[in-house]
Amino acid sequence: MSAEVIALRPQVATPSLNPMLALTAAGMNSVNAVILDRMQSEIPLIPALAGHLIAGGGKRMRPMLTLASAALLDYQGARHHKLAAAVEFIHTATLLHDDVVDGSELRRGKATANIVFGNPATVLVGDFLFSRAFELMVEDGSLKVLKILSNASAVIAEGEVDQLTAQRQIETSEERYLHIIGAKTAALFAAACRIAAVVAERDAETEAALESYGRNLGIAFQLVDDAIDYDSEASEMGKGKGDDFRDGKMTLPVILAYARGSEEERHFWRDAIQGHRTSDADLAHAVTLIARHDTVSATRDRARHFAQRAIDAIAGFPAGAARCAMAEAAEFAVSRRY
Amino acid sequence: MSAEVIALRPQVATPSLNPMLALTAAGMNSVNAVILDRMQSEIPLIPALAGHLIAGGGKRMRPMLTLASAALLDYQGARHHKLAAAVEFIHTATLLHDDVVDGSELRRGKATANIVFGNPATVLVGDFLFSRAFELMVEDGSLKVLKILSNASAVIAEGEVDQLTAQRQIETSEERYLHIIGAKTAALFAAACRIAAVVAERDAETEAALESYGRNLGIAFQLVDDAIDYDSEASEMGKGKGDDFRDGKMTLPVILAYARGSEEERHFWRDAIQGHRTSDADLAHAVTLIARHDTVSATRDRARHFAQRAIDAIAGFPAGAARCAMAEAAEFAVSRRY
Repeated sequence: MSAEVIALRPQVATPSLNPMLALTAAGMNSVNAVILDRMQSEIPLIPALAGHLIAGGGKRMRPMLTLASAALLDYQGARHHKLAAAVEFIHTATLLHDDVVDGSELRRGKATANIVFGNPATVLVGDFLFSRAFELMVEDGSLKVLKILSNASAVIAEGEVDQLTAQRQIETSEERYLHIIGAKTAALFAAACRIAAVVAERDAETEAALESYGRNLGIAFQLVDDAIDYDSEASEMGKGKGDDFRDGKMTLPVILAYARGSEEERHFWRDAIQGHRTSDADLAHAVTLIARHDTVSATRDRARHFAQRAIDAIAGFPAGAARCAMAEAAEFAVSRRY
Repeated sequence: MSAEVIALRPQVATPSLNPMLALTAAGMNSVNAVILDRMQSEIPLIPALAGHLIAGGGKRMRPMLTLASAALLDYQGARHHKLAAAVEFIHTATLLHDDVVDGSELRRGKATANIVFGNPATVLVGDFLFSRAFELMVEDGSLKVLKILSNASAVIAEGEVDQLTAQRQIETSEERYLHIIGAKTAALFAAACRIAAVVAERDAETEAALESYGRNLGIAFQLVDDAIDYDSEASEMGKGKGDDFRDGKMTLPVILAYARGSEEERHFWRDAIQGHRTSDADLAHAVTLIARHDTVSATRDRARHFAQRAIDAIAGFPAGAARCAMAEAAEFAVSRRY
């Protein structure tokens, strides 16, 4: 795997997120201050529940992308801090609702908010953060940013409903899967990058280039997330191992294992995705079949394709620390093991 | 009861919503067209689920209030149609999430969306409608309207969380209860009225007057809703009878019955609100205690106070069909039995 990653950018032995973290460190301090300030409420349960997830050690990829994109454009203002916080609030709201929808028990190695605080409070605090995100955008005052992020929010919700509809449907195609992750994950990555071009008052081509970087990176990111859930070599994930399998989610490792499988294997997958095979032995068998057809590798290969498209989308921008960090972040996204 | 209502406006024997319906009929056709158009999605489950509630026979009070307020100001444009639809989408999203939060089974006499389509889809379609509401506002393009409605949305979510925190807490005061319904219900009524002044480009005093009408009407409306849930004389409600009782919700009929009750009665209420008395006989006993202390009437009296404040808030506007309809709507709100 690492040999292939080196082929992308020979100068980097082990791609990491460190250049992106360094590039955005000062800005992220401001973003984090906005996040902490604006998740407050006179109702104590709100900051308690929101803080449980927000303090839970996420990478804050999306606000970092807004900041990195702004750095790429040499934007010198501070408007993007509030907007990056709004992006993170939208993301946090969708995570809270996702965990209720999936009945998840673990995220980033910690008990989920729905387990600690219950489904009702988790749904409502998600709504609160979503509203706060729009309040932050309104304070900034750009209708263009509001349009981009309200549209992204609707697309995310559509993608989540589409994923729900595809759940336990063994015939889900790779095309449909890509459509789903393009909506539920990549739409917010794309919007997070694009709004930097809006605040920097750059032209439509610049917006489109950053949108493309974000979209492709988001797809790559989700593909790798879905690969990791079946990767027998991956180190322990934060989320419960095999969650996708037990939930009957049609992710690419399964779609390809089903497509490439024998009649007997397909029979197993049909049963499993319909929820009739949920034991640890069933999960182990699923991982064996996936290894047999190399579909975790195939999924990572697909991710590499999108990561390369992300890198090429920003090839026309001036070389420098920002472009380098964003390219390496794309490589990191596809090489990561957790 | 009706004698007291007559005292408010002697010319009306039985207050009804009909003048408001007549006043807004043409405009509501446009609003309904926007609603039907904008709840569509390429994901069929979305319009199916949204339509289940939207076609479910609600009064659409909130968009009607936007239209009536615009008529009061003699606004001749059409911007308020899209915004009224946005208000209804925000309301629909909160209803969907409320029903998940409460595990409700009936609304307006029909099975709730969460029962028909499940909690996961109901949460996500709520998110979709909420996003669509913001898309509609962004299309309209008024940052002032966006500010009013994004703030109202955050306040609603806070009110809902606050209500959740107060659930099963027998010591909840009337003050706290009023604070909760001011947030969860009245904030959107207030915003629905106020935005009409913004699109009609009227001054801050006009905005404040309509905001006050909406806020007081909303409080009156919720008080009566909460009275009806314990009103032994009320005709059958759309929602499951005694839901508030079984959910341990501290609404005013209970708060006052507890305050006015004997030590023995208080003991019953403590047990009941904590969820230890949920049988039909327990509900019947609760209704008896409430009748003994006349707290349904007391709750309706409180509502009448707020309805009168709503009517007086618009007393300075020109007399005419709109002001008349809005005043009678306030009287209807407190006299209704379902």
